[in-house]
Amino acid sequence: MSRTRVHNLSISLDGFATGEPQCLETPFGHAGQRLHEWMIATRFWGEGGSVGVDDALAARHSDGIGAEIMGANKFGPPGWQDDPDWTGWWGPEPPFHTPTFVLTHRPRPSLAMEGGTTFHFLDTTPADALEVAREAAAGQDVRIGGGPSVVRDFVAAGLVDHLHLVQVPIVLGRGVRLWDGLEALEDDYTIEATTSTSGVTHLILERRPH
Amino acid sequence: MSRTRVHNLSISLDGFATGEPQCLETPFGHAGQRLHEWMIATRFWGEGGSVGVDDALAARHSDGIGAEIMGANKFGPPGWQDDPDWTGWWGPEPPFHTPTFVLTHRPRPSLAMEGGTTFHFLDTTPADALEVAREAAAGQDVRIGGGPSVVRDFVAAGLVDHLHLVQVPIVLGRGVRLWDGLEALEDDYTIEATTSTSGVTHLILERRPH
Repeated sequence: MSRTRVHNLSISLDGFATGEPQCLETPFGHAGQRLHEWMIATRFWGEGGSVGVDDALAARHSDGIGAEIMGANKFGPPGWQDDPDWTGWWGPEPPFHTPTFVLTHRPRPSLAMEGGTTFHFLDTTPADALEVAREAAAGQDVRIGGGPSVVRDFVAAGLVDHLHLVQVPIVLGRGVRLWDGLEALEDDYTIEATTSTSGVTHLILERRPH
Repeated sequence: MSRTRVHNLSISLDGFATGEPQCLETPFGHAGQRLHEWMIATRFWGEGGSVGVDDALAARHSDGIGAEIMGANKFGPPGWQDDPDWTGWWGPEPPFHTPTFVLTHRPRPSLAMEGGTTFHFLDTTPADALEVAREAAAGQDVRIGGGPSVVRDFVAAGLVDHLHLVQVPIVLGRGVRLWDGLEALEDDYTIEATTSTSGVTHLILERRPH
Protein backbone atom coordinates (compact mmCIF):
# COMPACT_ATOMS: atom_id res chain seq x y z
CA MET A 1 0.00 0.00 0.00
CA SER A 2 1.42 3.36 -1.02
CA ARG A 3 1.96 5.67 1.95
CA THR A 4 2.20 9.44 2.27
CA ARG A 5 5.26 10.67 4.16
CA VAL A 6 6.95 13.84 5.36
CA HIS A 7 10.69 13.83 6.06
CA ASN A 8 13.30 16.15 7.50
CA LEU A 9 10.88 18.97 8.19
CA SER A 10 12.86 21.13 10.58
CA ILE A 11 11.18 23.45 13.07
CA SER A 12 12.35 25.80 15.79
CA LEU A 13 11.43 25.29 19.46
CA ASP A 14 8.54 27.66 18.88
CA GLY A 15 7.34 25.67 15.88
CA PHE A 16 8.40 27.79 12.92
CA ALA A 17 9.51 25.84 9.84
CA THR A 18 10.79 28.95 8.12
CA GLY A 19 11.62 32.51 9.10
CA GLU A 20 10.74 35.68 7.27
CA PRO A 21 10.87 37.35 4.83
CA GLN A 22 11.19 34.54 2.31
CA CYS A 23 12.83 35.89 -0.84
CA LEU A 24 15.35 34.97 -3.53
CA GLU A 25 18.33 35.80 -1.31
CA THR A 26 16.97 34.21 1.85
CA PRO A 27 14.61 31.31 1.06
CA PHE A 28 14.18 30.66 4.81
CA GLY A 29 14.14 34.31 5.88
CA HIS A 30 15.96 35.19 9.10
CA ALA A 31 16.27 31.47 9.91
CA GLY A 32 19.01 31.25 7.29
CA GLN A 33 20.57 27.77 7.31
CA ARG A 34 20.06 27.29 11.03
CA LEU A 35 17.10 24.93 10.72
CA HIS A 36 19.08 22.63 8.44
CA GLU A 37 22.62 22.56 9.83
CA TRP A 38 21.91 19.21 11.50
CA MET A 39 21.11 17.70 8.06
CA ILE A 40 23.96 19.36 6.18
CA ALA A 41 26.32 17.72 8.70
CA THR A 42 25.17 14.18 7.79
CA ARG A 43 26.50 11.71 5.22
CA PHE A 44 23.04 11.85 3.63
CA TRP A 45 23.92 15.40 2.63
CA GLY A 46 27.55 14.90 1.69
CA GLU A 47 30.57 12.65 1.88
CA GLY A 48 32.39 12.68 5.20
CA GLY A 49 29.22 13.58 7.09
CA SER A 50 28.05 12.06 10.37
CA VAL A 51 26.56 8.56 10.34
CA GLY A 52 24.50 8.48 13.56
CA VAL A 53 20.79 8.84 14.17
CA ASP A 54 20.58 12.18 12.33
CA ASP A 55 21.92 10.49 9.20
CA ALA A 56 19.78 7.38 9.52
CA LEU A 57 16.61 9.42 9.79
CA ALA A 58 17.63 11.98 7.14
CA ALA A 59 18.31 9.22 4.61
CA ARG A 60 14.74 7.95 4.83
CA HIS A 61 13.88 11.00 2.74
CA SER A 62 14.32 9.05 -0.48
CA ASP A 63 13.72 5.40 0.51
CA GLY A 64 10.80 4.00 -1.44
CA ILE A 65 9.58 7.38 -2.64
CA GLY A 66 8.03 7.46 -6.11
CA ALA A 67 6.78 11.06 -6.27
CA GLU A 68 6.86 14.34 -4.34
CA ILE A 69 4.23 17.01 -3.84
CA MET A 70 5.43 20.50 -2.88
CA GLY A 71 3.85 23.90 -2.42
CA ALA A 72 4.42 26.94 -4.59
CA ASN A 73 6.47 28.54 -1.79
CA LYS A 74 8.96 25.68 -1.87
CA PHE A 75 9.43 25.82 -5.64
CA GLY A 76 10.49 29.45 -5.77
CA PRO A 77 10.50 32.87 -4.12
CA PRO A 78 7.34 34.99 -4.13
CA GLY A 79 6.59 35.96 -7.73
CA TRP A 80 8.32 33.05 -9.49
CA GLN A 81 5.10 32.50 -11.42
CA ASP A 82 5.88 35.72 -13.31
CA ASP A 83 9.28 34.42 -14.44
CA PRO A 84 8.90 31.93 -17.31
CA ASP A 85 12.58 30.90 -16.95
CA TRP A 86 12.35 29.90 -13.26
CA THR A 87 13.01 26.16 -12.92
CA GLY A 88 13.35 25.87 -9.13
CA TRP A 89 16.17 26.50 -6.66
CA TRP A 90 18.08 23.35 -7.42
CA GLY A 91 19.91 23.87 -10.75
CA PRO A 92 19.76 21.50 -13.71
CA GLU A 93 19.66 18.30 -11.60
CA PRO A 94 17.23 18.68 -8.67
CA PRO A 95 17.54 16.20 -5.80
CA PHE A 96 14.10 14.65 -6.20
CA HIS A 97 14.70 12.13 -9.03
CA THR A 98 10.97 11.40 -9.40
CA PRO A 99 7.86 13.08 -10.76
CA THR A 100 7.42 16.16 -8.56
CA PHE A 101 4.10 17.97 -8.33
CA VAL A 102 4.07 21.68 -7.57
CA LEU A 103 0.78 23.05 -6.22
CA THR A 104 0.12 26.49 -7.69
CA HIS A 105 -2.86 28.51 -8.77
CA ARG A 106 -0.94 29.41 -11.93
CA PRO A 107 0.13 26.12 -13.49
CA ARG A 108 2.56 25.96 -16.41
CA PRO A 109 3.74 23.15 -18.72
CA SER A 110 5.69 20.27 -17.21
CA LEU A 111 9.45 20.60 -16.97
CA ALA A 112 11.76 17.61 -17.41
CA MET A 113 15.05 18.10 -15.56
CA GLU A 114 18.21 15.99 -15.43
CA GLY A 115 18.41 13.05 -13.07
CA GLY A 116 14.81 11.93 -13.29
CA THR A 117 13.00 14.90 -11.78
CA THR A 118 10.03 16.14 -13.79
CA PHE A 119 8.11 19.08 -12.38
CA HIS A 120 4.37 19.03 -12.98
CA PHE A 121 2.22 21.99 -11.97
CA LEU A 122 -1.21 21.41 -10.47
CA ASP A 123 -3.99 23.72 -9.37
CA THR A 124 -6.06 21.36 -7.27
CA THR A 125 -6.92 20.14 -3.75
CA PRO A 126 -4.55 18.11 -1.55
CA ALA A 127 -6.68 14.97 -2.02
CA ASP A 128 -6.76 15.27 -5.80
CA ALA A 129 -3.05 16.10 -5.98
CA LEU A 130 -2.30 13.03 -3.90
CA GLU A 131 -4.32 10.85 -6.23
CA VAL A 132 -2.35 12.11 -9.23
CA ALA A 133 1.00 11.76 -7.43
CA ARG A 134 0.17 8.27 -6.19
CA GLU A 135 -0.56 7.19 -9.74
CA ALA A 136 2.79 8.61 -10.85
CA ALA A 137 4.56 6.88 -7.96
CA ALA A 138 3.55 3.50 -9.38
CA GLY A 139 3.12 1.71 -6.08
CA GLN A 140 5.83 3.56 -4.19
CA ASP A 141 5.24 6.16 -1.49
CA VAL A 142 4.50 9.85 -1.98
CA ARG A 143 6.50 12.47 -0.09
CA ILE A 144 4.90 15.76 0.93
CA GLY A 145 7.92 17.98 0.53
CA GLY A 146 6.70 21.15 2.21
CA GLY A 147 6.66 24.00 2.94
CA PRO A 148 4.95 24.00 6.30
CA SER A 149 1.57 25.29 5.17
CA VAL A 150 1.29 22.53 2.56
CA VAL A 151 2.25 19.91 5.14
CA ARG A 152 -0.36 21.36 7.49
CA ASP A 153 -3.01 21.21 4.75
CA PHE A 154 -2.28 17.55 4.01
CA VAL A 155 -2.15 16.57 7.69
CA ALA A 156 -5.37 18.44 8.45
CA ALA A 157 -7.03 16.63 5.52
CA GLY A 158 -6.02 13.29 7.09
CA LEU A 159 -3.79 12.37 4.15
CA VAL A 160 -0.40 11.86 5.87
CA ASP A 161 0.72 8.48 7.28
CA HIS A 162 4.17 9.37 8.58
CA LEU A 163 5.80 12.63 9.67
CA HIS A 164 9.43 13.11 10.58
CA LEU A 165 9.99 16.49 12.23
CA VAL A 166 13.27 17.81 13.56
CA GLN A 167 13.16 20.31 16.37
CA VAL A 168 16.19 22.58 16.39
CA PRO A 169 17.09 24.38 19.65
CA ILE A 170 16.52 27.93 18.43
CA VAL A 171 13.61 30.32 18.98
CA LEU A 172 12.70 32.04 15.70
CA GLY A 173 9.87 34.20 17.00
CA ARG A 174 8.27 34.70 13.57
CA GLY A 175 7.78 32.95 10.26
CA VAL A 176 5.43 30.14 9.25
CA ARG A 177 4.22 27.88 12.06
CA LEU A 178 3.80 24.17 11.53
CA TRP A 179 1.39 23.36 14.35
CA ASP A 180 -1.42 25.85 13.70
CA GLY A 181 -4.78 24.15 13.29
CA LEU A 182 -3.48 20.71 14.29
CA GLU A 183 -4.98 20.56 17.80
CA ALA A 184 -5.18 17.01 19.24
CA LEU A 185 -2.86 15.57 16.58
CA GLU A 186 -1.83 13.01 19.21
CA ASP A 187 -5.25 11.36 18.83
CA ASP A 188 -4.34 10.36 15.27
CA TYR A 189 -0.61 9.70 15.62
CA THR A 190 1.80 7.95 17.93
CA ILE A 191 4.65 10.35 18.67
CA GLU A 192 8.20 9.23 19.40
CA ALA A 193 10.90 11.72 20.43
CA THR A 194 14.63 11.03 20.12
CA THR A 195 17.47 13.46 20.75
CA SER A 196 20.80 13.33 18.98
CA THR A 197 24.29 14.52 19.86
CA SER A 198 23.86 17.36 17.36
CA GLY A 199 21.37 18.89 19.78
CA VAL A 200 18.21 18.37 17.72
CA THR A 201 15.18 16.35 18.78
CA HIS A 202 13.62 14.08 16.16
CA LEU A 203 9.86 13.69 16.39
CA ILE A 204 8.47 10.67 14.55
CA LEU A 205 4.71 10.68 14.10
CA GLU A 206 3.06 7.55 12.74
CA ARG A 207 -0.64 7.44 12.02
CA ARG A 208 -2.55 5.13 14.37
CA PRO A 209 -4.41 2.25 12.73
CA HIS A 210 -8.08 3.14 12.20
CA MET B 1 25.40 33.70 44.45
CA SER B 2 21.61 33.35 44.54
CA ARG B 3 20.21 32.19 41.21
CA THR B 4 16.79 32.50 39.61
CA ARG B 5 15.33 29.23 38.33
CA VAL B 6 12.29 27.80 36.59
CA HIS B 7 11.42 24.12 37.05
CA ASN B 8 8.96 21.60 35.66
CA LEU B 9 7.28 24.06 33.33
CA SER B 10 5.41 21.74 30.98
CA ILE B 11 4.50 22.76 27.45
CA SER B 12 2.79 21.11 24.51
CA LEU B 13 4.58 20.51 21.19
CA ASP B 14 3.08 23.77 20.00
CA GLY B 15 4.38 25.63 23.04
CA PHE B 16 1.30 26.12 25.18
CA ALA B 17 1.86 25.89 28.94
CA THR B 18 -1.84 25.91 29.68
CA GLY B 19 -5.03 25.40 27.73
CA GLU B 20 -8.21 27.43 27.93
CA PRO B 21 -10.46 28.49 29.51
CA GLN B 22 -8.73 28.64 32.89
CA CYS B 23 -11.33 28.54 35.62
CA LEU B 24 -12.00 27.08 39.06
CA GLU B 25 -13.01 23.69 37.64
CA THR B 26 -10.22 23.49 35.05
CA PRO B 27 -7.12 25.41 36.14
CA PHE B 28 -5.33 24.33 32.94
CA GLY B 29 -8.34 24.61 30.63
CA HIS B 30 -8.75 21.90 27.99
CA ALA B 31 -5.21 20.69 28.74
CA GLY B 32 -6.57 19.10 31.93
CA GLN B 33 -3.84 17.06 33.64
CA ARG B 34 -2.18 16.08 30.38
CA LEU B 35 0.75 18.48 30.68
CA HIS B 36 1.63 17.11 34.11
CA GLU B 37 1.05 13.36 33.90
CA TRP B 38 4.81 12.82 33.46
CA MET B 39 5.42 14.53 36.83
CA ILE B 40 2.54 12.92 38.70
CA ALA B 41 4.09 9.55 37.76
CA THR B 42 7.38 10.32 39.54
CA ARG B 43 8.51 9.62 43.08
CA PHE B 44 8.93 13.40 43.46
CA TRP B 45 5.14 13.59 43.29
CA GLY B 46 4.29 10.52 45.34
CA GLU B 47 5.50 7.31 46.86
CA GLY B 48 5.91 4.42 44.43
CA GLY B 49 6.54 6.77 41.51
CA SER B 50 9.23 6.38 38.84
CA VAL B 51 12.84 7.12 39.75
CA GLY B 52 14.44 7.81 36.35
CA VAL B 53 15.37 11.04 34.61
CA ASP B 54 11.84 12.49 34.96
CA ASP B 55 12.09 12.13 38.72
CA ALA B 56 15.66 13.42 38.98
CA LEU B 57 14.79 16.58 37.08
CA ALA B 58 11.41 17.06 38.76
CA ALA B 59 12.99 16.89 42.21
CA ARG B 60 15.25 19.84 41.47
CA HIS B 61 12.11 21.93 41.94
CA SER B 62 12.83 22.36 45.66
CA ASP B 63 16.63 21.92 45.94
CA GLY B 64 18.18 25.06 47.34
CA ILE B 65 15.12 27.21 46.81
CA GLY B 66 14.49 29.92 49.42
CA ALA B 67 11.53 31.74 47.85
CA GLU B 68 9.06 31.53 44.97
CA ILE B 69 7.52 34.21 42.78
CA MET B 70 4.27 33.37 40.99
CA GLY B 71 1.76 35.25 38.85
CA ALA B 72 -1.81 36.05 39.84
CA ASN B 73 -3.06 33.42 37.36
CA LYS B 74 -1.20 30.68 39.20
CA PHE B 75 -2.56 31.68 42.62
CA GLY B 76 -6.19 31.38 41.69
CA PRO B 77 -8.86 31.35 38.98
CA PRO B 78 -9.87 34.62 37.29
CA GLY B 79 -11.58 36.79 39.91
CA TRP B 80 -9.92 35.35 43.03
CA GLN B 81 -9.07 38.92 44.01
CA ASP B 82 -12.78 39.45 44.72
CA ASP B 83 -12.90 36.53 47.16
CA PRO B 84 -11.36 37.51 50.52
CA ASP B 85 -11.37 33.85 51.61
CA TRP B 86 -9.32 32.53 48.67
CA THR B 87 -6.01 31.13 49.94
CA GLY B 88 -4.73 29.39 46.80
CA TRP B 89 -5.40 26.00 45.18
CA TRP B 90 -3.32 23.99 47.58
CA GLY B 91 -5.28 23.63 50.82
CA PRO B 92 -3.93 24.45 54.30
CA GLU B 93 -0.38 23.22 53.57
CA PRO B 94 0.82 24.42 50.16
CA PRO B 95 3.83 22.64 48.63
CA PHE B 96 6.13 25.67 48.58
CA HIS B 97 7.45 25.72 52.19
CA THR B 98 9.10 29.14 51.71
CA PRO B 99 8.07 32.76 51.38
CA THR B 100 6.01 32.89 48.17
CA PHE B 101 5.39 36.16 46.37
CA VAL B 102 2.23 36.55 44.31
CA LEU B 103 2.33 39.29 41.68
CA THR B 104 -1.03 41.03 41.52
CA HIS B 105 -2.33 44.52 40.87
CA ARG B 106 -4.62 44.05 43.87
CA PRO B 107 -2.38 43.11 46.79
CA ARG B 108 -3.77 41.95 50.13
CA PRO B 109 -2.23 41.22 53.55
CA SER B 110 0.27 38.37 53.81
CA LEU B 111 -1.06 34.91 54.55
CA ALA B 112 0.87 32.44 56.70
CA MET B 113 0.00 28.84 55.83
CA GLU B 114 1.05 25.55 57.40
CA GLY B 115 4.37 23.97 56.46
CA GLY B 116 6.38 27.15 56.05
CA THR B 117 4.62 28.77 53.10
CA THR B 118 3.77 32.42 53.57
CA PHE B 119 2.04 34.17 50.68
CA HIS B 120 3.01 37.80 50.15
CA PHE B 121 1.21 39.90 47.57
CA LEU B 122 3.17 42.39 45.46
CA ASP B 123 2.19 44.92 42.84
CA THR B 124 5.56 45.63 41.26
CA THR B 125 7.94 44.91 38.36
CA PRO B 126 9.74 41.59 37.84
CA ALA B 127 13.08 43.15 38.80
CA ASP B 128 11.75 44.66 42.02
CA ALA B 129 9.86 41.50 42.93
CA LEU B 130 13.05 39.50 42.43
CA GLU B 131 14.96 41.81 44.74
CA VAL B 132 12.35 41.35 47.49
CA ALA B 133 12.23 37.57 46.98
CA ARG B 134 16.02 37.26 46.95
CA GLU B 135 16.20 39.06 50.27
CA ALA B 136 13.60 36.65 51.67
CA ALA B 137 15.49 33.66 50.26
CA ALA B 138 18.47 34.53 52.48
CA GLY B 139 21.17 33.39 50.08
CA GLN B 140 19.23 30.54 48.54
CA ASP B 141 17.81 30.53 45.00
CA VAL B 142 14.52 32.03 43.85
CA ARG B 143 12.09 29.97 41.79
CA ILE B 144 9.85 31.63 39.23
CA GLY B 145 6.84 29.38 39.62
CA GLY B 146 4.78 30.45 36.60
CA GLY B 147 2.39 30.72 34.90
CA PRO B 148 3.87 31.05 31.44
CA SER B 149 3.34 34.77 31.00
CA VAL B 150 5.18 35.51 34.24
CA VAL B 151 8.04 33.22 33.21
CA ARG B 152 8.15 34.99 29.85
CA ASP B 153 8.28 38.39 31.54
CA PHE B 154 11.18 37.36 33.79
CA VAL B 155 13.09 35.71 30.93
CA ALA B 156 12.54 38.71 28.64
CA ALA B 157 13.84 40.98 31.42
CA GLY B 158 17.03 38.91 31.55
CA LEU B 159 16.38 37.78 35.13
CA VAL B 160 16.37 33.98 34.77
CA ASP B 161 19.52 31.84 35.09
CA HIS B 162 18.10 28.36 34.60
CA LEU B 163 14.96 27.05 32.91
CA HIS B 164 13.73 23.48 32.96
CA LEU B 165 10.96 22.95 30.42
CA VAL B 166 9.19 19.69 29.69
CA GLN B 167 7.74 19.20 26.26
CA VAL B 168 4.79 16.82 26.27
CA PRO B 169 3.82 15.11 22.98
CA ILE B 170 0.40 16.69 22.59
CA VAL B 171 -0.79 19.56 20.38
CA LEU B 172 -3.03 21.91 22.39
CA GLY B 173 -3.81 24.38 19.64
CA ARG B 174 -4.79 27.19 22.02
CA GLY B 175 -3.99 28.56 25.46
CA VAL B 176 -1.04 30.58 26.70
CA ARG B 177 2.18 30.27 24.70
CA LEU B 178 5.54 30.19 26.43
CA TRP B 179 7.79 31.22 23.53
CA ASP B 180 6.15 34.44 22.38
CA GLY B 181 8.55 37.37 22.40
CA LEU B 182 11.60 35.22 23.16
CA GLU B 183 13.19 35.27 19.69
CA ALA B 184 16.88 34.31 19.68
CA LEU B 185 16.76 32.92 23.22
CA GLU B 186 19.57 30.57 22.14
CA ASP B 187 21.94 33.54 22.11
CA ASP B 188 21.58 33.85 25.88
CA TYR B 189 21.19 30.20 26.89
CA THR B 190 22.76 26.85 26.18
CA ILE B 191 19.96 24.38 25.46
CA GLU B 192 20.16 20.68 26.23
CA ALA B 193 17.39 18.28 25.19
CA THR B 194 16.86 14.85 26.78
CA THR B 195 14.00 12.47 26.15
CA SER B 196 12.65 10.05 28.70
CA THR B 197 10.81 6.75 28.48
CA SER B 198 7.62 8.54 29.53
CA GLY B 199 7.63 10.19 26.12
CA VAL B 200 8.43 13.74 27.21
CA THR B 201 11.46 15.78 26.16
CA HIS B 202 13.22 17.76 28.86
CA LEU B 203 14.74 21.06 27.75
CA ILE B 204 17.37 22.47 30.08
CA LEU B 205 18.32 26.07 29.40
CA GLU B 206 21.27 27.54 31.27
CA ARG B 207 22.24 31.17 30.90
CA ARG B 208 25.57 31.63 29.13
CA PRO B 209 28.28 33.43 31.12
CA HIS B 210 28.37 37.14 30.20
